[in-house]
Amino acid sequence: MKKKNAVYAQSGGVTAVINASAYGVINACRQYDVIDKVYAAKNGILGILHEELFDTNIYSDDVIESLKYTTGGAFGSCRYKLKDINVDGREYRRLLEVFIAHDIEYFFYNGGNDSADTCFKVSQIAHELNYPLKAIHIPKTIDNDLVITDNCPGFGSAAKYIAISTYEASLDLISMCQTSTKVFIFEVMGRHSGFLAAASGLTASNSQNNFPHIILLPEIAFNQELFLQKINDTIKHYGYCVIVASEGIKDQNNNLLSKSNSRDSFGHMQLGGVASMLANIITTHLKLKCHYAIADYLQRSARHIAAEVDVNQAIEIARYGVRLAIDGKNAVMPIIERVSNKPYRWQLDHTDLINVANYEKKLPANFISNDGFNITPLCLDYLLPLIQGESYPPYKNGLPNYTQFHHQLIDKKLPPQDM
Amino acid sequence: MKKKNAVYAQSGGVTAVINASAYGVINACRQYDVIDKVYAAKNGILGILHEELFDTNIYSDDVIESLKYTTGGAFGSCRYKLKDINVDGREYRRLLEVFIAHDIEYFFYNGGNDSADTCFKVSQIAHELNYPLKAIHIPKTIDNDLVITDNCPGFGSAAKYIAISTYEASLDLISMCQTSTKVFIFEVMGRHSGFLAAASGLTASNSQNNFPHIILLPEIAFNQELFLQKINDTIKHYGYCVIVASEGIKDQNNNLLSKSNSRDSFGHMQLGGVASMLANIITTHLKLKCHYAIADYLQRSARHIAAEVDVNQAIEIARYGVRLAIDGKNAVMPIIERVSNKPYRWQLDHTDLINVANYEKKLPANFISNDGFNITPLCLDYLLPLIQGESYPPYKNGLPNYTQFHHQLIDKKLPPQDM
Repeated sequence: MKKKNAVYAQSGGVTAVINASAYGVINACRQYDVIDKVYAAKNGILGILHEELFDTNIYSDDVIESLKYTTGGAFGSCRYKLKDINVDGREYRRLLEVFIAHDIEYFFYNGGNDSADTCFKVSQIAHELNYPLKAIHIPKTIDNDLVITDNCPGFGSAAKYIAISTYEASLDLISMCQTSTKVFIFEVMGRHSGFLAAASGLTASNSQNNFPHIILLPEIAFNQELFLQKINDTIKHYGYCVIVASEGIKDQNNNLLSKSNSRDSFGHMQLGGVASMLANIITTHLKLKCHYAIADYLQRSARHIAAEVDVNQAIEIARYGVRLAIDGKNAVMPIIERVSNKPYRWQLDHTDLINVANYEKKLPANFISNDGFNITPLCLDYLLPLIQGESYPPYKNGLPNYTQFHHQLIDKKLPPQDM
Repeated sequence: MKKKNAVYAQSGGVTAVINASAYGVINACRQYDVIDKVYAAKNGILGILHEELFDTNIYSDDVIESLKYTTGGAFGSCRYKLKDINVDGREYRRLLEVFIAHDIEYFFYNGGNDSADTCFKVSQIAHELNYPLKAIHIPKTIDNDLVITDNCPGFGSAAKYIAISTYEASLDLISMCQTSTKVFIFEVMGRHSGFLAAASGLTASNSQNNFPHIILLPEIAFNQELFLQKINDTIKHYGYCVIVASEGIKDQNNNLLSKSNSRDSFGHMQLGGVASMLANIITTHLKLKCHYAIADYLQRSARHIAAEVDVNQAIEIARYGVRLAIDGKNAVMPIIERVSNKPYRWQLDHTDLINVANYEKKLPANFISNDGFNITPLCLDYLLPLIQGESYPPYKNGLPNYTQFHHQLIDKKLPPQDM
């Protein structure tokens, strides 16, 4: 049986453990005789379109292993939506041309909802062209908004970061609230799904903690009157108030509270600025001193405090994806199934991409408290296993010793294509 | 010799290691026979004014030891400036009344510039009243702006947090910059001193890193034209640009770039919002997609990644302060002296509070690069030893196991005084 090549590509916003999945794919591919080269695409799908590929075979096992604890996207990622296949199929055909030119029959695409759709369409066109591609989508997203899978690699570490940050900032606030700041607002990501904001509620797993007092979720329409009332009540009771707000919170008319003018290439609005807007409301109406922090990229790149369980799942789900490909599966995504909560046990399975692509999971209604301002014990039971364990990177000179790859591109075999 | 009591109070914004100093004071006091009770003031100086004191003697050594890794202010802190002693000396006299009522002859005040001044004045009035108080100021501040001492406990851990966060967010930015965000802005604290912003430059101690490309310091007047030019040049060269901005940056007329209307009780303006303002300038003039994070309380409470050297210094400087008091010193502050850089060696000494109170250290001119946008190798040599070592707290259930003290106040001996 002639050996075939594989390609691995990252898509969309990176996570603290996306490179752990890269490790999982590359390391697993090295175990199978049927796979020769494992290429990594430079900047995700763009690297395949432009035939910009790295040969990961030049790296020793040790170097590949350092991907396990390196944050960012080691080979580069991108936000790039392929043109609609029904309108202009040239980009999809180009992908196939590159696969064929480089003898690539295994395609591992590591991303979220959008990339699941791309992966699915690539598999379709390969099928039409009778090319024996095995297209496997390896899930990753900090938002945890992929359906079917119980949770998604990348989320647990972001959740841990958010919970720890909320905890630490709250203890700071409490120390000073008698004479200084009374309200602390922490803005986290989450465009449509409230899992990240909900993760701040993990601090309540320590029964000594009464914070955060208010979690603003994109699933619940923002009501300014109830919001101000809840702050007032909280301040009266505790003397301080901790608020965690998703960047994606919306008003009663489903309009984003905070809009900026820029959109990414998928047409998603670029969010941000919710915290300052809330601080303004609070200062104006309640005359309370506010502080706010915005986590932004810090929450998705904080490999220094990644959850061990998340790192392990990122690796194992990728390995499993490789096995699915070896078994001849196509257009599938490996998923995590929860077997039990206490002790936390999980197993791997897979689903057809058609079940995943372009769907978006939201925070279930029974995860949200009746007043809409907090999470339920059920939500806590769901979240708690996902932040377990501290997977610390090695340090050098006081800083994490992240590996930076100085890649050399392989020779192109095709003429450039202007798209 | 009759045993006397001691009181420990925290002042101003807390740090990741301020409780390590609390441990140092309490633990050291327990070693000396001349000290009986060690009280801790509730919410800093206010606790003394209102005779709200905790008796730390009720806690076992183990519980006191857990202060070493607990963030926030374990006994509460405050921002409260005593009334001018020359205008209305009642508050200062009240402090002395409380000291006398509770047989307190040792006063350990753990704070920054303002509290050094308070501590000095308390010692003066004790002297006038012939009360044998030993008033010792234990330095802490994340800003590192105390004079005489080579560095200040609290800074190293904040510096480590900022350096790691800058590193991680930069790797995130790099992964995505081809198709998405080109500029990342990280806003950090530092009202007048640029040490915290400068700490982001520690990432360059790894020679693979070219970021941050721009550090905006309060010591350098902001020049929008040069700023935009520098971004342009950086983007042309690297394809992305990482900016770290101090909240306290000022324009050519020495006005803060970003002002809010609220002031704290010392009359300091409450800052914040520099990042969004810079993002706005960049988006408007250069049409580049920006993201920004604001560290706010996270940078001063991030005990989860405290620098080991900082924790050790916070403990040792506090212990040394107790020894100074036992030796009969008054109105002094223990200081850290740097003996050598490589290997880093330091020793303790002390200085009279008159040399410290109300002075403010700025980033030295030779720590700032010629173009004003970065730090020099000399600055790097200064900073690098201060972030060494990772002092991780213990974890429970995926979160740091910070001790929360449920204190009971001791009985009051004085009638309340309305001030």
